[in-house]
Amino acid sequence: MELPLAPEWQTTTWFNVPEPLTLSGLRGHVVLLHAFQMLCPGCVSHGLPQAQRVATRFPDVKVIGLHTVFEHHEAMGLASLRAFLHEYRIRFPVAVDLSGPDGDPLPRTMRAYAMQGTPTTVLIDAHGRLHRQVFGVHDDLLLGADLGLLRAHAPSPAEPPAAPTIASKDSCAEDSCAV
Amino acid sequence: MELPLAPEWQTTTWFNVPEPLTLSGLRGHVVLLHAFQMLCPGCVSHGLPQAQRVATRFPDVKVIGLHTVFEHHEAMGLASLRAFLHEYRIRFPVAVDLSGPDGDPLPRTMRAYAMQGTPTTVLIDAHGRLHRQVFGVHDDLLLGADLGLLRAHAPSPAEPPAAPTIASKDSCAEDSCAV
Amino acid sequence: MELPLAPEWQTTTWFNVPEPLTLSGLRGHVVLLHAFQMLCPGCVSHGLPQAQRVATRFPDVKVIGLHTVFEHHEAMGLASLRAFLHEYRIRFPVAVDLSGPDGDPLPRTMRAYAMQGTPTTVLIDAHGRLHRQVFGVHDDLLLGADLGLLRAHAPSPAEPPAAPTIASKDSCAEDSCAV
Amino acid sequence: MELPLAPEWQTTTWFNVPEPLTLSGLRGHVVLLHAFQMLCPGCVSHGLPQAQRVATRFPDVKVIGLHTVFEHHEAMGLASLRAFLHEYRIRFPVAVDLSGPDGDPLPRTMRAYAMQGTPTTVLIDAHGRLHRQVFGVHDDLLLGADLGLLRAHAPSPAEPPAAPTIASKDSCAEDSCAV
Repeated sequence: MELPLAPEWQTTTWFNVPEPLTLSGLRGHVVLLHAFQMLCPGCVSHGLPQAQRVATRFPDVKVIGLHTVFEHHEAMGLASLRAFLHEYRIRFPVAVDLSGPDGDPLPRTMRAYAMQGTPTTVLIDAHGRLHRQVFGVHDDLLLGADLGLLRAHAPSPAEPPAAPTIASKDSCAEDSCAV
Repeated sequence: MELPLAPEWQTTTWFNVPEPLTLSGLRGHVVLLHAFQMLCPGCVSHGLPQAQRVATRFPDVKVIGLHTVFEHHEAMGLASLRAFLHEYRIRFPVAVDLSGPDGDPLPRTMRAYAMQGTPTTVLIDAHGRLHRQVFGVHDDLLLGADLGLLRAHAPSPAEPPAAPTIASKDSCAEDSCAV
Repeated sequence: MELPLAPEWQTTTWFNVPEPLTLSGLRGHVVLLHAFQMLCPGCVSHGLPQAQRVATRFPDVKVIGLHTVFEHHEAMGLASLRAFLHEYRIRFPVAVDLSGPDGDPLPRTMRAYAMQGTPTTVLIDAHGRLHRQVFGVHDDLLLGADLGLLRAHAPSPAEPPAAPTIASKDSCAEDSCAV
Repeated sequence: MELPLAPEWQTTTWFNVPEPLTLSGLRGHVVLLHAFQMLCPGCVSHGLPQAQRVATRFPDVKVIGLHTVFEHHEAMGLASLRAFLHEYRIRFPVAVDLSGPDGDPLPRTMRAYAMQGTPTTVLIDAHGRLHRQVFGVHDDLLLGADLGLLRAHAPSPAEPPAAPTIASKDSCAEDSCAV
């Protein structure tokens, strides 16, 4: 089955990056697009921390945040988002989704991907094809499996990252028992 | 780089399976061997629940528990292990590692794999090669990535499992905001 | 030792209550004042959920939120706070702390209590005296013990709430083993 | 309402204490009796850690563990319990409940208190009266409130413990924002 190409995103302001990024410009890389709203509790407690874990554990994956505001627009303007990203220490590139045409409360990229809400996690392979799109809390094991698969098929697959395990040397510590 | 073959395991009693399993008999499948002790706190709180998650999320992966007792032998006998597996509802096959020769407190499979303690997570590819061995608490994203990679290279790669996401329909619920 | 009276608070807008509340008007009740900022991660993840637990478990305790913005003022205005309270389903009364005089970034109640930052949890006894003030993440057991003590000395001490325990009837379930 | 006296416990082996303790010998102290089984998942994940937190936070409260085995007796003998207490670093006194008469699978103290299963948390006031008994997972805030109340009425009430809060000095750290 041939997967469809992921739509190019339509954005205004970008944070954490000197110039706007395009999806086509990231061809060759696995992309995780994380659509969120700064006042969406599930995004703050689950989605964004998970995106940050991916960015930390898989430096070869391009993690992009997309602020897809579809409610309380007046409460989540640029100044609020800037402070939010600062306080929550979000370091990966974040774009603001372009407002929809008159009468459409949904911004344009959100509409183009037919997202059902936030958080939404979108996985795009190295050829720009939409591999998977998940609305709601996603599972680390399943997300990891998708990333492992996509990275295996990327042009220059990165080495699997070394596992940063925490193991104690002190007989049975909280996390493990050493020989 | 050619990976070494994983050593065949040496076991006594098996639980949750009608007959003993051999590693060679599982050729063609990705295998996750989880070495634990029933009184190892990190195994109970992290390792075993993670192995159960893998067994649930990836039915094509063969998850095998290995009870590698290297201390408090008198406290973790067969009757205790049987009750433990029952109370903790562990349903995947579990084997007891064969005791070492006189003077060796470590059981034989644990010794053959040069494990440093418990929990230890061992990933074996469909060709029986030792892909990765991690001592201590392992990370779901990294473990998932390894599984995704190994499953992609298995003879009959399973479909990536559908993501069981939890998303509310009720505007902003705890986990998500719906359009 | 005689405890000092807690300073009266100075506020502007109130949410979740038809009219502004005064501390003196709450005499006779144990009061928990929770000072927070809507973009303070520790408030969102720990402080506010704890205040909500107190409001739910102890209906006789008056839980009051106080929005004490001392940074990113432009990002945490009324519209943003209103949306935040809605999305996070905060139902107890919340007041906005009155801005300080020119040149003081700290609002007035925050200054009067000499708070060190957010979250800050303030416990005031039924006589209006400042019993304890804690900056940072507070512990449920210790907070509960203070509440138990203060409620015991309130004019009409409430009955200790019945314990809403979760116990299974199904032999050993996740949380308990029934006889 | 006059509360009933808590029944004296009937025990065999004690751990973590040089001589057996009696309930009557602890008169004058608030007592938390925590009944558990070492293979009860809810005890291991919730009950025992909570009892340890109480022992740490309230040195004036006497925390006593009671091993009330009513199933899998052969799996939870003395050697297993000893290893369990060692591995889980349980430092407060722990007693083994005395087996019931022939035909009764419940041990005697468990029977005398009419416990419904494990974990069970029993609070006894400084006069030896049974203040509350909770089967299943208990709530830290509610347990703390009971402890605060009972400690307030103890002959020599301890000072409320200083709150060990964790607050950062680094503007907005994970847990708090400092002025």
